[in-house]
Amino acid sequence: MGRIVISGGAGFIGSHLCDRLLGEGHGLFVLDNFLTGRRSNIAHLIGHPGFLLGEQDVSEPFAVDGPVDYVLHLASPASPPDFKRLPFETIRAGSFATHRMLDLAIEKKARFLLASTSEVYGDPPPEQHPQNEDYWGNVNPIGERSVYDEAKRYAEMITMAYRRERGLDTRIVRIFNTYGPRMKPDDGRVVTNFIRQSLHGEPLTLYGDGNQTRSFSYVTDTVDGILRLLMSNEPGPINIGNPVEFTVRELAERVTAMIPGAGPIITVEMPFQDDPKQRKPDITRARTLLGWEPKVPLEEGLRLTIDAVRTELG
Amino acid sequence: MGRIVISGGAGFIGSHLCDRLLGEGHGLFVLDNFLTGRRSNIAHLIGHPGFLLGEQDVSEPFAVDGPVDYVLHLASPASPPDFKRLPFETIRAGSFATHRMLDLAIEKKARFLLASTSEVYGDPPPEQHPQNEDYWGNVNPIGERSVYDEAKRYAEMITMAYRRERGLDTRIVRIFNTYGPRMKPDDGRVVTNFIRQSLHGEPLTLYGDGNQTRSFSYVTDTVDGILRLLMSNEPGPINIGNPVEFTVRELAERVTAMIPGAGPIITVEMPFQDDPKQRKPDITRARTLLGWEPKVPLEEGLRLTIDAVRTELG
Repeated sequence: MGRIVISGGAGFIGSHLCDRLLGEGHGLFVLDNFLTGRRSNIAHLIGHPGFLLGEQDVSEPFAVDGPVDYVLHLASPASPPDFKRLPFETIRAGSFATHRMLDLAIEKKARFLLASTSEVYGDPPPEQHPQNEDYWGNVNPIGERSVYDEAKRYAEMITMAYRRERGLDTRIVRIFNTYGPRMKPDDGRVVTNFIRQSLHGEPLTLYGDGNQTRSFSYVTDTVDGILRLLMSNEPGPINIGNPVEFTVRELAERVTAMIPGAGPIITVEMPFQDDPKQRKPDITRARTLLGWEPKVPLEEGLRLTIDAVRTELG
Repeated sequence: MGRIVISGGAGFIGSHLCDRLLGEGHGLFVLDNFLTGRRSNIAHLIGHPGFLLGEQDVSEPFAVDGPVDYVLHLASPASPPDFKRLPFETIRAGSFATHRMLDLAIEKKARFLLASTSEVYGDPPPEQHPQNEDYWGNVNPIGERSVYDEAKRYAEMITMAYRRERGLDTRIVRIFNTYGPRMKPDDGRVVTNFIRQSLHGEPLTLYGDGNQTRSFSYVTDTVDGILRLLMSNEPGPINIGNPVEFTVRELAERVTAMIPGAGPIITVEMPFQDDPKQRKPDITRARTLLGWEPKVPLEEGLRLTIDAVRTELG
């Protein structure tokens, strides 16, 4: 049992992490500014004796009373439409906020975990597919997406500097595409896009030709991987994601097959420069070092997600 | 004629830039914390009517009175031994300091120039040799050198974000290896290392096998390139460097040939992980867009540098 500070605990992945940690008896102090996190994600936790919520932008100064065992930095806009809408907030979440969370961990002598991203790999060439943790990435430093990619690379870099220079006990998890209940129906991620469009009887929009591949991890699998890393002695970075690969077009077809009355699949222009054409985790390290692998099949994950989006859209 | 704020104006390249700008009649306000910059570099400018000096760490808050036409951010530790000794100062120079200099440029409606580096290219594979500005780089985000490389990539990223999102008039120059008078004799850079060792009659130390190549631009050439970019309408990034390539071993041999009594050449272990094996600028863009190319031959540059180091060492 520990006392855990989590930034971004009201976010999509963050809130599922809270559910799991509370279930295991930890005490949580969630810091979230609700910029992209949502109150509805944690409404069911308010009043739980182990749950405390602070409305706080962690890129600004803040203080936490009492002892802390773990500091988890998950706060960041994390979907392409959010980076585009919130470029400076995305930058600050990777840099200033990471510095402050690291400083908190130093102050409290706590273990620190950085939620990094497969975006640090950028747009890998075919010979780097799937990506393992030793791949250095192919990121355009001055492109439109760089507000997220470079800010996260910066976050990894300073995390390692605190580890090397100040002896901080750190963990870095590189999270690949994750889906599940509590994703914002309008956040522009491909899974919720397709589900929302299908439920509304609208055409499903593929960016580009739809042949770019993605791998999707169901959120409870992702959360399990994060926790195994946190409680292990491995510093990372460690990839957490599902290596089962689909084209975006295949995903669209699956979703339409599961929703009666779903509309046609159409293609539209790429919304971003430098949109990665393929990305898939090599999870050898997570398998061997953490004994982790994803368990929820796409079919089941999609069903649970469709149910949740249907409920949310009313 | 303009009013120009320069961070790092007491540094090696910064101080030569000051000489040139004062010579052209600009008014300068130099901000330097003398962490790696040296008072001796600008001692000859103190009292000049167009020269004002503020001792300031530009990663901390500061204010500048009156109008400003150009904001130039050169401040950063910039040699491998300095990154190693000053990891957090190096990080802050790329991130916090760049934010503050950008904010100053916004406040003053000034043009902003970022002194970036060939280190953003990291360790390029053979097919990316020489490097042009469209190459995205091969940088280890969690390596020991990343405190400089990733911080500079972050600096480029935020510079472009200010340009895109806030309409700031920006310039990014990627400076390749530069040498000349006022380099610190003990800063660990290869040219001054060899000169200092030769003057002291010590063995010249090659890192690794000495077959890694470098290209060296004489400082007045580099400064000329920076100024051409600053006064152009090109946003960059633009490479400024000398594409004439030598192995580090060849350089050692040239230096020993120019200094009577110079010691033998020996090899030692690489001091850093991820030390780039080769790097050389493609300067097509500087040539065609700025009409710039390096003019000072290595022989002449070395002579001027040897004279300066000899004087400094007394």
